[in-house]
Amino acid sequence: MYCKEVNLLHDNLSVRDGHLCFAGYDTVELAKKYGTPLMLLDEQRIRNTMRTYKNAMEKYFGKESKPLYASKALSCIAMYQIAKEEGIYTDIVSIGELYTAKRAGFPLENAFFHGNSKTDFDIEYAIENGIGYFVVDTSDELYALDRIAEKKGVVQKILLRITPGIDPHTHSAISTGKVDSKFGTAIETGQALEITASALCMSNLRLEGFHCHIGSQIFEIEPYCDASEIMLGFIDKVKEELGFTPTILNLGGGFGVRYVESDPVISYEENIKRIAEHIDSYCEANQLYKPTILMEPGRSIVADSGMTIYTVGSVKKIPEYKNYVAIDGGMADNPRYALYQSSYTVLCANKMNESPSFNCTIAGRLCESGDLIQENVMIPPVQRGDNIAVLVTGAYNYAMSSNYNRVHRPLVLMLGESERIAIKRESFEDVSRLDEFLD
Amino acid sequence: MYCKEVNLLHDNLSVRDGHLCFAGYDTVELAKKYGTPLMLLDEQRIRNTMRTYKNAMEKYFGKESKPLYASKALSCIAMYQIAKEEGIYTDIVSIGELYTAKRAGFPLENAFFHGNSKTDFDIEYAIENGIGYFVVDTSDELYALDRIAEKKGVVQKILLRITPGIDPHTHSAISTGKVDSKFGTAIETGQALEITASALCMSNLRLEGFHCHIGSQIFEIEPYCDASEIMLGFIDKVKEELGFTPTILNLGGGFGVRYVESDPVISYEENIKRIAEHIDSYCEANQLYKPTILMEPGRSIVADSGMTIYTVGSVKKIPEYKNYVAIDGGMADNPRYALYQSSYTVLCANKMNESPSFNCTIAGRLCESGDLIQENVMIPPVQRGDNIAVLVTGAYNYAMSSNYNRVHRPLVLMLGESERIAIKRESFEDVSRLDEFLD
Repeated sequence: MYCKEVNLLHDNLSVRDGHLCFAGYDTVELAKKYGTPLMLLDEQRIRNTMRTYKNAMEKYFGKESKPLYASKALSCIAMYQIAKEEGIYTDIVSIGELYTAKRAGFPLENAFFHGNSKTDFDIEYAIENGIGYFVVDTSDELYALDRIAEKKGVVQKILLRITPGIDPHTHSAISTGKVDSKFGTAIETGQALEITASALCMSNLRLEGFHCHIGSQIFEIEPYCDASEIMLGFIDKVKEELGFTPTILNLGGGFGVRYVESDPVISYEENIKRIAEHIDSYCEANQLYKPTILMEPGRSIVADSGMTIYTVGSVKKIPEYKNYVAIDGGMADNPRYALYQSSYTVLCANKMNESPSFNCTIAGRLCESGDLIQENVMIPPVQRGDNIAVLVTGAYNYAMSSNYNRVHRPLVLMLGESERIAIKRESFEDVSRLDEFLD
Repeated sequence: MYCKEVNLLHDNLSVRDGHLCFAGYDTVELAKKYGTPLMLLDEQRIRNTMRTYKNAMEKYFGKESKPLYASKALSCIAMYQIAKEEGIYTDIVSIGELYTAKRAGFPLENAFFHGNSKTDFDIEYAIENGIGYFVVDTSDELYALDRIAEKKGVVQKILLRITPGIDPHTHSAISTGKVDSKFGTAIETGQALEITASALCMSNLRLEGFHCHIGSQIFEIEPYCDASEIMLGFIDKVKEELGFTPTILNLGGGFGVRYVESDPVISYEENIKRIAEHIDSYCEANQLYKPTILMEPGRSIVADSGMTIYTVGSVKKIPEYKNYVAIDGGMADNPRYALYQSSYTVLCANKMNESPSFNCTIAGRLCESGDLIQENVMIPPVQRGDNIAVLVTGAYNYAMSSNYNRVHRPLVLMLGESERIAIKRESFEDVSRLDEFLD
């Protein structure tokens, strides 16, 4: 039994003896055992979501279609291990991610290397390690890659990143597919066709298709359908004008995640099915060749499989102004409110039976006014020592974490059949390990 | 000789053979030698600014007055070493900073421990290491500290953090001194007097005075004068009502820093002189006791003593939209544009003789649309391989840096009589060092 006013948001959450449980584990007990801030991951939910994408994509797009885990959402050895075991691909955006995937034993021929500013060193390192595909962002990269591939004696497979130019005002969540993005090459300006022609002339590169990314946290299928039409039209134009038929169309990021009660509940499988139907009928109607479809879910694989547990350090009531509940973490482990005013659901993990009657701002411990986790939160009255749970923190929390104020990064615990450490807690010794003395 | 359209902003910048020089060093040569991204620090300028604060404060406020280096601006061993050598105090905001100061040999009796959410472990660690002062933020901390001090058998010196309640609309740069701040206790609500009364009852704490912080990046003296008046009035009230005369008034953060040409040129010494005159005449007119004045410059000590050098990875011209110059760093080493849309001056370090005729956005290398360093920048036409200098990055850049996208953090080089590494470049091995395997 727990207070009925509380919405648990996802089915991996439950309540036992007034304590919040996650993936079946008592979060208050875990906080006591491992200390806070503590990040929890639900292994089974991660695997289930990967399987949902993989099965639905193979079923509806065709058996060559695969999800790529967009590992920038949470890049660590454990995540690449799981992705490997589940038989999905990955995308990486730096040689730091590539190195981590390699350490994890992830087959790098199934890895796609993204990024708008790869250095010669990055390119050499990725080729030496047998990366599957470069997703080439610019002409500068194209020429550098051809030159280095020649030097290394390889023919490197590539996709080209294209900006479909969907008006972001139509779909406000879309922000990276528009023409003036820092990413990719625009169809609208004619530059996408030009870079394709250039790529086809490169003797050390093998162009296999195109990539686009229209943004993330998209719940609807329409933006994907629109992007598909534009990209399929572009592919047809490439075929007609350049005589080249690409075999891969990578549609980019996955679907939206439910952070708060007002976010919709959607079915990833149903969305994939409907996008596939749209693509099939569009190709048929226009007699277009249908390439292998890839997608890159990151946030939707790991966000709601994560949660952060904090301990309250102080409660400050400012009469006629507001109340603050300060915790032992903040923008150093979760900068998303400071950066984007992101919404989060906040619960008091050890008072799940009590009515959420206390309106407060959850403030971080860092010395900065903007270090807030969430404003206008309703939780039970709390005091120093209580545990605060911030839900849906699996994506872009640890990945974006810093040592601002020289605080050390949290422990990340993978909760499966047993509890296992995925990322060790940083020590304060760790934090100054790169400092040198002036002598 | 260099292009006359370029404003060099600070007198530690110069041009030699078309190359930007910083603290007398050729930045292009340093980039070649050490790689990029590369953060440079001007040791002499850091020391000079510390001396300016110290000498002016001792001269105008009285010889007990000292600046505290607000080390959250850039916390590393080298900075605490310099602060120690220059005979100034420091403030620290976590035991990570405390640990770093200790490693540097900084005398911790001259360190002040800030923060709105200190854990019992933080408090114990700081007491064990002989911290000079706790700047107590809340009643919760006050009671915890008294309890732990008793356990440790010490009488701990403290200041109380008070919010003077200056209207932020009067002075827009002020954001932490207002009543509804997450920091401190408000005079306006009567809570400041209450917490003072509580502190005076604690047998294991010795209250020595008060702290306030009205914000940072303030160029004018009026906010400091206003805050002083309010705090001196509060001190007088404390004396009358509680019979206690505090000896310390810590006025918080230092003065504004010139990031761009439109920022004013100010004299820190002149500002201190005028604030001191204001305090003297106010105390005299109202027959008030004048406490020892402390200030906490951080940004103004290290910001304009820093610079970051990058290498261009790609140039993207989108006709009729905009131009992007992508570099080999970004929001992972400088998140301030993403967080606050901060202004920066950007130069092409190896083309200082060329006219800045190319309008562009400086984009980071990270996979995120918001990863920009500055928009609407005028630099000479550049290409892959050119060096981009972003000026005035000494404060809150490295300090806030992350491993987002698993990029590794830059090298920090201290330029003095010789060039010395202050912080080693992080390797990509470093970045995954805390990861554990799931077995």
